Amino acid sequence: MPQDYRVPHLTTALKGPLLELEAHLLNHSHAIEAWFRQEFRDTPAPFYASVDLRNAGYKLAPVDTNLFPAGFNNLHPDLRPLAVQAAQHAITQACPVTDGVLIIPENHTRNTFYLENLYTLKDIIESAGYEVRIGSINPEVTEAQTIDLPSGNSLVLEPLAREGNRVGVTGFFPCAVLLNNDLSAGRPAILEGIEQVLMPPLDLGWSSRYKTHHFQHYANVAKRLAELVDIDPWLITPESMQCGEVDFKNPDSLERLATKVNEVLAKTGDYYHEHDIDCKPFVIVKSDSGTYGMAIMSVQSADDILKLNRKQRNKMSFAKEGLTVDKMLVQEGVYTFETVDEAVAEPVVYMIHNHVIGGFYRIHTGKTATDNLNSPGMHFEPMSFQLSGVLPDQTQGPDAEPNRFYAYGVIARLALLAAAYEIKHSKTQNR
Amino acid sequence: MPQDYRVPHLTTALKGPLLELEAHLLNHSHAIEAWFRQEFRDTPAPFYASVDLRNAGYKLAPVDTNLFPAGFNNLHPDLRPLAVQAAQHAITQACPVTDGVLIIPENHTRNTFYLENLYTLKDIIESAGYEVRIGSINPEVTEAQTIDLPSGNSLVLEPLAREGNRVGVTGFFPCAVLLNNDLSAGRPAILEGIEQVLMPPLDLGWSSRYKTHHFQHYANVAKRLAELVDIDPWLITPESMQCGEVDFKNPDSLERLATKVNEVLAKTGDYYHEHDIDCKPFVIVKSDSGTYGMAIMSVQSADDILKLNRKQRNKMSFAKEGLTVDKMLVQEGVYTFETVDEAVAEPVVYMIHNHVIGGFYRIHTGKTATDNLNSPGMHFEPMSFQLSGVLPDQTQGPDAEPNRFYAYGVIARLALLAAAYEIKHSKTQNR
Repeated sequence: MPQDYRVPHLTTALKGPLLELEAHLLNHSHAIEAWFRQEFRDTPAPFYASVDLRNAGYKLAPVDTNLFPAGFNNLHPDLRPLAVQAAQHAITQACPVTDGVLIIPENHTRNTFYLENLYTLKDIIESAGYEVRIGSINPEVTEAQTIDLPSGNSLVLEPLAREGNRVGVTGFFPCAVLLNNDLSAGRPAILEGIEQVLMPPLDLGWSSRYKTHHFQHYANVAKRLAELVDIDPWLITPESMQCGEVDFKNPDSLERLATKVNEVLAKTGDYYHEHDIDCKPFVIVKSDSGTYGMAIMSVQSADDILKLNRKQRNKMSFAKEGLTVDKMLVQEGVYTFETVDEAVAEPVVYMIHNHVIGGFYRIHTGKTATDNLNSPGMHFEPMSFQLSGVLPDQTQGPDAEPNRFYAYGVIARLALLAAAYEIKHSKTQNR
Repeated sequence: MPQDYRVPHLTTALKGPLLELEAHLLNHSHAIEAWFRQEFRDTPAPFYASVDLRNAGYKLAPVDTNLFPAGFNNLHPDLRPLAVQAAQHAITQACPVTDGVLIIPENHTRNTFYLENLYTLKDIIESAGYEVRIGSINPEVTEAQTIDLPSGNSLVLEPLAREGNRVGVTGFFPCAVLLNNDLSAGRPAILEGIEQVLMPPLDLGWSSRYKTHHFQHYANVAKRLAELVDIDPWLITPESMQCGEVDFKNPDSLERLATKVNEVLAKTGDYYHEHDIDCKPFVIVKSDSGTYGMAIMSVQSADDILKLNRKQRNKMSFAKEGLTVDKMLVQEGVYTFETVDEAVAEPVVYMIHNHVIGGFYRIHTGKTATDNLNSPGMHFEPMSFQLSGVLPDQTQGPDAEPNRFYAYGVIARLALLAAAYEIKHSKTQNR
């Protein structure tokens, strides 16, 4: 049994023998790692990403890929050196000569969870040896303001300024600009046509990006990985269909959505039946362009769509920052069979550059295995290193517990690779 | 108090408040990290190194820098992802297109400690997604042989072959060749003039390298770092003098050595006196070109040299592989005030590329604070992550225990930078 340390060896919630798929990926780790290395050499990874996974045991798949991850503060502090090392390489690759990084954050100035994340992100990049300052595009930030955080740390937000073709804050216009704002509110004019290196590029903001594109790229790379290790691509790919524009107040439009839902349910049901999977298919309906936990629902039949009440229809019509939802994605629901303290949990894997740098469980005590867990009431449990024993000198023997987290790192990086293809594709289009 | 995660947060043997020097380095971590980043950009680090440190409390200094480190198996398994990530970047930088790495090991085929190290090193590079095979220059290795290791793993040694200007093993002549053989026995003809990338270069083997050169480079970079953070360079620099050729059987030669010993003792004594350091100066006399724990002695007066008996003189005359010692290095002895389970201990820090990837304590129950610990009877204790608490979600508050290990990572990387200058210098000379 190969021990694979390519991704950190973290404790996962599942106990017991390795599931077949996880074992299969572990057994093919060398081929997988060589493939990723070559893929990311040709198609560089975005600066960072977090990927929500669902592990149904018989299937392990990404359900959301976030290119502007928050939540760095939820990672275990022991993993910090991995993040620092990866950040140094990501910045060196994007902008070899820079000595500074400007971060453009989300506009929330009172969400302390978000601001703690921002502090951690800043600290990671500073620890890599860069000067970091934060330039906000929030119109309420008109002068430098210091925000004290519950952790005891503090953060300075400064208003973002533009000088010619560069953006920055007073006296600081570095070559590297890191977006930690998903641009749900649209492409800010101040960022158009800047000559600095913007990571990730403007086109990857939710104002321009569609999840269906991501999942199309994902299906392509998943198919290639599946061929490499000889598995059915279904085992790692969620069936995804774009539904086009949906007006939740228009019965015809809802009818069309219900038809798509039926299609995905039928396809999934057929597969379950063929392969003796004793589960009831379900479907996730979500905005095709960023949800931030809103405009998302789990349905088990087309009727669930047709019987939506007014409140539910309203909820589905508005996503973050008041953006009206237009296009919808209908995606096969993947059960999460992981629990932490009896509450349902889904793993979220964090990456910087092409490296897995940690993960945590999103846990919801009030939800079930078919629900979206990214909703109010959730909490986080950082994954820590799997302790190999009490004594520090205990080395891992050949019968050591295999790295369950490895499979999660593979699928998360596969989603990262899909995002890399999105970036490549957007660059080709803009030429 | 900045929390610095640039190097892993590991448990060190010292308890109690941070010593002044450690605290000073921690407080200047951002400046230090930016400086290292720029230095290593201009002067790339060797592929790997391990550095022996001594922490006397008032002084923290490197005493040995090994460019062909063994002992990777002594690092804590939790730290493996750091090593894998760093190896991937080191290989990408040296040889962007290679898919394979050939390792040339030491000639011991029966030293299982060494072979376990070799297995771990191979595993690190394989985990980074490269094919790895081992080509031995040991004349006894005439065909591929599989060696079973105590850990349950096994290793295949193959005879190194040369085809034109490339070396390799049957069907495997990759662009990247990694030396894990310190070349004490001389420069192997088979490696001269190869067109592959040899890491580190042939000139850095002990057959061509002198410790005094390393410590001269070290003194230079230490002086610059000391200026940057405004400390006395003495605090991080061991006084080192080359003694030239010493024939331990010739009284005149010993007399000359005794004079140098007196010089270093007097200089150190003066400093102790000026700064109220209540310790007795001592000196380490060692071979100027690799010792492997042999040909090294700790002396407290010139008399110790003049009164050497025949057995001691013989011991000092022969180093590894029967090489006659000629040039000697006389170096200020640095007390080690660290103990593990009441035995004296010195930290050994491992680096790949320009990243600290772990460390362990070398411990010797039969030695004192002035002795060389790299000798029979020593054992190793891997450093593990400093557990921040029992609960995995406990985040590090601003009053969290500071990263004591940070200072060790700084001094070790300073020695690594000195080695990088050695490589640069040897390349310039060979042009």
